[in-house]
Amino acid sequence: MVKKPAPDSSRRSERSRRAIYDAALALVGEVGYPKTTVEGIAARAGVGKQTIYRWWGSKADVLLEAFLDLSAQAAREAGQEPYAIPDTGDLAADLKAVLRVTVDQLKDPRFEVPSRALAAEGLVNEQLGRESVAKLLEPQLQLYVDRLRSAQEAGQVRPELDPRIALELFVSPLAQRWLQHTGPISYEYTDTLVDYALGGLAPR
Amino acid sequence: MVKKPAPDSSRRSERSRRAIYDAALALVGEVGYPKTTVEGIAARAGVGKQTIYRWWGSKADVLLEAFLDLSAQAAREAGQEPYAIPDTGDLAADLKAVLRVTVDQLKDPRFEVPSRALAAEGLVNEQLGRESVAKLLEPQLQLYVDRLRSAQEAGQVRPELDPRIALELFVSPLAQRWLQHTGPISYEYTDTLVDYALGGLAPR
Repeated sequence: MVKKPAPDSSRRSERSRRAIYDAALALVGEVGYPKTTVEGIAARAGVGKQTIYRWWGSKADVLLEAFLDLSAQAAREAGQEPYAIPDTGDLAADLKAVLRVTVDQLKDPRFEVPSRALAAEGLVNEQLGRESVAKLLEPQLQLYVDRLRSAQEAGQVRPELDPRIALELFVSPLAQRWLQHTGPISYEYTDTLVDYALGGLAPR
Repeated sequence: MVKKPAPDSSRRSERSRRAIYDAALALVGEVGYPKTTVEGIAARAGVGKQTIYRWWGSKADVLLEAFLDLSAQAAREAGQEPYAIPDTGDLAADLKAVLRVTVDQLKDPRFEVPSRALAAEGLVNEQLGRESVAKLLEPQLQLYVDRLRSAQEAGQVRPELDPRIALELFVSPLAQRWLQHTGPISYEYTDTLVDYALGGLAPR
């Protein structure tokens, strides 16, 4: 039987949970993924490590949830629904709006430093890489799949295209510039990507 | 005055140089970039570390040249000119051919293991990241810029497009799938990217 917590204890839990997220993100940004430990997160958050193990199975689980929480926060701060892409009927405008929020997030140090540490570890630690993609990135990409499907139904995207590949034409360039410092990131840049991807490089 | 080496000593140098490249790539794949040292490379290559310092300033310099050499080798093995994109007049075919060679290279463990180690370090070590992009990646991207410019002159790509951004529509998706394991990599996939990028997602 699961005991329903009293309101006071639930507020306390919520505070602990947030302190643990903050500690996990800060630590991974400072010392990297391999040296981040559940003990270290607990000490920094001011909780016992049993508190962490009561809620999560491993440091990877804590971190992945901390990132999910951070992304949802960023969307709310930008005045958008977390986990949604608007559908105003104007595909280009909707994609540009979402990508602009992503640009802001990628440039925000609260997000950038821990994200780089996690991405770097994911490159050489295939299991963590696949897990963080499955839990953090792929659900976001599926929102683009849904938006492109609805555009296909509206006749704005060619019906024979695979939306899971199509989205990569504007999502992956931004990801590569951010990951590898291959070029500057700006609203103008992501707007251009959307225009090039929808219109194509060949003359019409 | 620079002394021209006798043929024998030049052959010996070439052998040492290759042994050093092989040792550097193997080590960085095995222990990662931070733990790879000039001493370790020298020991594994069976040369003195002064031999390495005679030719290169740092372990980063050795590694970047080793990667350049490896890429040139891969292109030659695939029957292509290193550092060139063919211009047969058929833009789609030329881009597909080059991307297929890249697919082979990304899946080749000789290339994959050390490349991941370098890319992972580049994510958190901004100086190394920027240096390896400038020396390894950007020169390759410039070949696409040249090919797209020639396609613009031939009327096959819209003249107002920025080729440096346009190339990212088919190069970056492949890079992201490889870097982050976000999806499988195949000839069919890169062919599809070229078709989507040239034709655009919107109906014509």
